[in-house]
Amino acid sequence: METVSENRSHGGVQGVYTHASAETGTDMTFSVFVPAHEAGARLPVLWYLSGLTCTHANVTEKGEYRAACAEHGIVFVAPDTSPRGDGVPDDEGWDFGKGAGFYVDATEAPWSTHYRMRSYVEEELPRLIASRFPADMERQGITGHSMGGHGALTIALRNPGRFRSTSAFAPIVSPLNCPWGKKALTGYIGADRTAWRDYDACAMMEDGARLPDLLVDQGTADGFLEEQLKTHLLEQACEKAGQTATIRMQEGYDHSYYFISTFMPGHVAWHAERLKR
Amino acid sequence: METVSENRSHGGVQGVYTHASAETGTDMTFSVFVPAHEAGARLPVLWYLSGLTCTHANVTEKGEYRAACAEHGIVFVAPDTSPRGDGVPDDEGWDFGKGAGFYVDATEAPWSTHYRMRSYVEEELPRLIASRFPADMERQGITGHSMGGHGALTIALRNPGRFRSTSAFAPIVSPLNCPWGKKALTGYIGADRTAWRDYDACAMMEDGARLPDLLVDQGTADGFLEEQLKTHLLEQACEKAGQTATIRMQEGYDHSYYFISTFMPGHVAWHAERLKR
Repeated sequence: METVSENRSHGGVQGVYTHASAETGTDMTFSVFVPAHEAGARLPVLWYLSGLTCTHANVTEKGEYRAACAEHGIVFVAPDTSPRGDGVPDDEGWDFGKGAGFYVDATEAPWSTHYRMRSYVEEELPRLIASRFPADMERQGITGHSMGGHGALTIALRNPGRFRSTSAFAPIVSPLNCPWGKKALTGYIGADRTAWRDYDACAMMEDGARLPDLLVDQGTADGFLEEQLKTHLLEQACEKAGQTATIRMQEGYDHSYYFISTFMPGHVAWHAERLKR
Repeated sequence: METVSENRSHGGVQGVYTHASAETGTDMTFSVFVPAHEAGARLPVLWYLSGLTCTHANVTEKGEYRAACAEHGIVFVAPDTSPRGDGVPDDEGWDFGKGAGFYVDATEAPWSTHYRMRSYVEEELPRLIASRFPADMERQGITGHSMGGHGALTIALRNPGRFRSTSAFAPIVSPLNCPWGKKALTGYIGADRTAWRDYDACAMMEDGARLPDLLVDQGTADGFLEEQLKTHLLEQACEKAGQTATIRMQEGYDHSYYFISTFMPGHVAWHAERLKR
């Protein structure tokens, strides 16, 4: 692991790091905020998965999470959204290929070699975080935005017991039922829609997966709400499944970081409450 | 005035606007955050002047001021740092020309036609803000970063009574005594250093100008501290002048927005205290 940059911020250190990933076969960049803490202490970890076109940098610069993480003593980890580099296949669209890994392990050529964001985020990066940062892996929470909200929901549903808290900002709730999801899953894992159910939060709940709790914020002025995000499908799935959930429609907010940063401190506090019990 | 974008954020509206400036002879872009407020109310205004290479966008995205401005009910205005456009002369360096207007009215060719950032920020933009936003111009505060800290200090010193509160993040405190200042003032207003005194906070205090109060934060790990910023000259000038000032050296902080965003909420609260009396 190499340090790209470390900046003192809100009493802690905001770092950006790279490492050679065995899963993706590329160098991967991620950011970690470590708040001030006593020597030897291990702090709860909040994962943030980013949306389409983003890298670690968007939330690191615009997410306004550091003040809240410093207050609550939480390590904040932001991975990239796909493998990158000259040898990595890409697509002309901004919603597939680089910047759009969809948190899946691709099985289709030419994507399957490098596009292993599920295993990277679920397995490889957590091992690195546990070994190199003052992180208490018994106390993890996960959140994300849009495609990263989909990532947070599905990773938490797939790994019961690992995350004490799950939240999302404007998540894609059902890739089975939106154009972004159909394009990504067809491309990465093929046309068989039964295989998609393992990457669809609503389908996973239908198939029996549950979360300890769930918080979702969704802006009513989000231009992607109707065609791509479809929050109502998550509401229906939670209701059917008896899944405890707080799903809030936020009047007038759009899909941008102006929305995310508004509700970020509340999400961090909500996670902190569950991570520090 | 045209609206470039308006996004709901922290209960208010973060806007970006352009207008044709008579002073600079160019279109000028700026951002304004207006917090939630009662119809007809006029709110205190906090000006933020940005540093070298920046536009309105840097602080708008990374400044973390909105939560505090929403809490305290303060309008936040961020102008650009220079005229821009194809017809505007520029320099090869990043510390002169576009992105580096230094908040002066240039008198030297070819700069004097467009580089009128002093009059733009002191006169033209305030008139626009007063006419188009719910701003109480009897309650103004001003702050800024680096070159913008220099701008905030000199504009406040030059206009006694206009600003109830003045603060700065890592300001250039004496252009007479640093390479950035020498390059900019030689270029924009010529070699006569007596004319520079009107653009040098320390010299202005020496010549009798005073502020109601002053708050400055400066990181000790700021790579520009020794050669360019020279905070100790401001400390000396304040002491000689009997100027009330809180000048804080912040251990381990650098020159970046990770530093600014850390102390921004505290600055907003400090201004609010003075603007809401």
